[in-house]
Amino acid sequence: MQNAGVKPLEGIRVLDISRIVSGPVCCWYLAALGAEVIRVEAPGGDQTWRSVPTVSPEGVVNRGARGPRDIALSALRRHRSKRSVVLDLANDTGRETFQRLAQHADVLVENFRPGATLKLGIDYETLSAINPGLVYCSITGYGDSGPYRNRSAMDLVVQAVSGLMSKTGFPDGPPTKVGATVGDQVPALFSAIGILAALRQRDRDGRGQHVDVSMLDSLVALLWDEPLDEYEDQGIPERVGNGDPRGAPLEVYRTLDGWVALVMTNDDQWVRLCDLMERPELVEPYATMRQRAAARDFINGAVGEWCSTRSTDAVIEHFVAISLPAAPVQSAWSARHDPHIAHRGSLEPLRHPDAAEPSPYLGAVLPVRLSRAELSSTPTEVLGHSTESVLRELLDADDDEIERLRRAGALGEG
Amino acid sequence: MQNAGVKPLEGIRVLDISRIVSGPVCCWYLAALGAEVIRVEAPGGDQTWRSVPTVSPEGVVNRGARGPRDIALSALRRHRSKRSVVLDLANDTGRETFQRLAQHADVLVENFRPGATLKLGIDYETLSAINPGLVYCSITGYGDSGPYRNRSAMDLVVQAVSGLMSKTGFPDGPPTKVGATVGDQVPALFSAIGILAALRQRDRDGRGQHVDVSMLDSLVALLWDEPLDEYEDQGIPERVGNGDPRGAPLEVYRTLDGWVALVMTNDDQWVRLCDLMERPELVEPYATMRQRAAARDFINGAVGEWCSTRSTDAVIEHFVAISLPAAPVQSAWSARHDPHIAHRGSLEPLRHPDAAEPSPYLGAVLPVRLSRAELSSTPTEVLGHSTESVLRELLDADDDEIERLRRAGALGEG
Repeated sequence: MQNAGVKPLEGIRVLDISRIVSGPVCCWYLAALGAEVIRVEAPGGDQTWRSVPTVSPEGVVNRGARGPRDIALSALRRHRSKRSVVLDLANDTGRETFQRLAQHADVLVENFRPGATLKLGIDYETLSAINPGLVYCSITGYGDSGPYRNRSAMDLVVQAVSGLMSKTGFPDGPPTKVGATVGDQVPALFSAIGILAALRQRDRDGRGQHVDVSMLDSLVALLWDEPLDEYEDQGIPERVGNGDPRGAPLEVYRTLDGWVALVMTNDDQWVRLCDLMERPELVEPYATMRQRAAARDFINGAVGEWCSTRSTDAVIEHFVAISLPAAPVQSAWSARHDPHIAHRGSLEPLRHPDAAEPSPYLGAVLPVRLSRAELSSTPTEVLGHSTESVLRELLDADDDEIERLRRAGALGEG
Repeated sequence: MQNAGVKPLEGIRVLDISRIVSGPVCCWYLAALGAEVIRVEAPGGDQTWRSVPTVSPEGVVNRGARGPRDIALSALRRHRSKRSVVLDLANDTGRETFQRLAQHADVLVENFRPGATLKLGIDYETLSAINPGLVYCSITGYGDSGPYRNRSAMDLVVQAVSGLMSKTGFPDGPPTKVGATVGDQVPALFSAIGILAALRQRDRDGRGQHVDVSMLDSLVALLWDEPLDEYEDQGIPERVGNGDPRGAPLEVYRTLDGWVALVMTNDDQWVRLCDLMERPELVEPYATMRQRAAARDFINGAVGEWCSTRSTDAVIEHFVAISLPAAPVQSAWSARHDPHIAHRGSLEPLRHPDAAEPSPYLGAVLPVRLSRAELSSTPTEVLGHSTESVLRELLDADDDEIERLRRAGALGEG
């Protein structure tokens, strides 16, 4: 790797006061790109820290009772490459200290309910008055305006209201939850984009702004790359299972030992597939995508029959040999065992910062490879590990001041 | 809106030579943020332009035969706010002209198969030698290295191989496709993040770099926010339907006329829910999330029973009144009719550039609200609309030169 150590977001300082998934994941991306991300949490941390399993400094995995310096697996994953500060924002001195930290930040990310930051005295208006260059990102369920503004949201809830669940599953089955937390992670991605764009605008005039991203808007954008209004007008079913009424073969087919996914994108592929299946009589009558779509059940049946007498490996080998877009339906945890993922280094072992060896758990690296940047991560810190060092570096706090803050209850038991 | 007209990516010029979904969507986000995106396509355009339905300059919707200046709905959506140039890269003069355009670009986005840009003479090495400041983003199925490098991929295929399909659906049902094109759109999001980060790095030293994003890596990152390795070790089923073994109530429940999603995040909510359901006897024995998770079927049964005798509207009204994270499972096209979406302006009417009135179709706006930027879009151009103007502006081409390029076949029928 050229230029080891160079990171694209060097020099950008982010205050991460967000909780659970969306905000922490957004800030992890920024940290992976080289921003200095300082995670500021109340004493005890958010509920991520209380989840199981945990990993101890000796690298032992605990699923029930946890040691005092254990770190939860979720925190080991989402807070890589961040610094951890404990500060009680509900305490007057804690809030005042946070406002001073915000003067030294480029970016702040929060995902409280609308109105909560105002009550805490750390809302956009207040902090941008103190630091006009601050890019302040709020991730909420429904945004900061509109009739649903005050409703609380979670991944499943937003998947439901956005229409994503109704679009996932089989025509004769129920609405189905997407098996990844897209309701949290897609807004995390849009937030990172909004923050980076706002930083660029700030480069020109020195001024920050408010970046407002909602979970609902994010899933609506995800869904509406398809013409859902046209589907409604045409009376097309909401859920189409694993196929697509507009084409064939375009399905998931049973093999002797599993399933394979196949997508046909052009008519030459059909000629090659008929040759492979030794069904030359099918080429002519189903030469075009439109003809195949019209005979979709028949086409899928013919392909399914061919697959059903072969192993997944054999089917994929044949399909790949004739350049069809195809793959096995792998298990949810397949990436842990996949040779391509291993080659790419797409997952990395998670490590307790005090442990000599990595834990048995894996986390995804930022899936962006940059030819001139080294995006290696550092382990999640124990909660509050950097409280003192951040106060010293950013606020020039000395021992006396830290003692004063501690006595005032701003640092919790930290 | 303050500062109408100011856009965060003003001054950034992007060449979009990508096709179908992932690249075009990435470039649409950059365009929405104010970059000058110049879409360069072969004569006839990519297959997006040949999809149905189309919209005519008179605003008429065509589902079969299309008029010569019709624009496909997919293009109306994905190419908003871009300029359209027709240039044949397979033609020597066309390639040479493109290389000249690349000297004037900040960013290039492509999603050819690995190796294809090398054959066309527009690969990263070639173009970065001409323009060392170029940020060159490649979106591929599997990345530019590793055993699957040369396999072709599509949304369904990557959903299959990543494990996302195996994680979506019911324990007793088949692997299930996610009802949004996450295999294309999630890499589009990561690509936009990578591009913006690389631009920031370039600000420091003037040099661009290669941004390599794969569809597989992107879905692996999406999935691995959960501890899939721990799930495998614990023998937890891959698919958990609409619930979550770790909590209850956390499910989708039938009502008299539909479904509602409910997620319980803390124990106070349970007390309020028991009060609502007039089941005080359930508070004590199931006071903690752990107790409720252990009695998950019973808890979900009790909540389901209560919901089953009420309308969706009534259930939601009750749940929202006591601040539970809940929502109706809305139809796939719900956003088209939803009052909150309307209030937020999350969807905008798509318009043929020559039509006086908007079409009946909607597209999502960029789901990032910036307090100091105006992110309004302009309609997709007719294919090749800006060919001449871009050649004149960027290359100082005059009538003679454009005629020369046309005669050489570089501009197709453009």
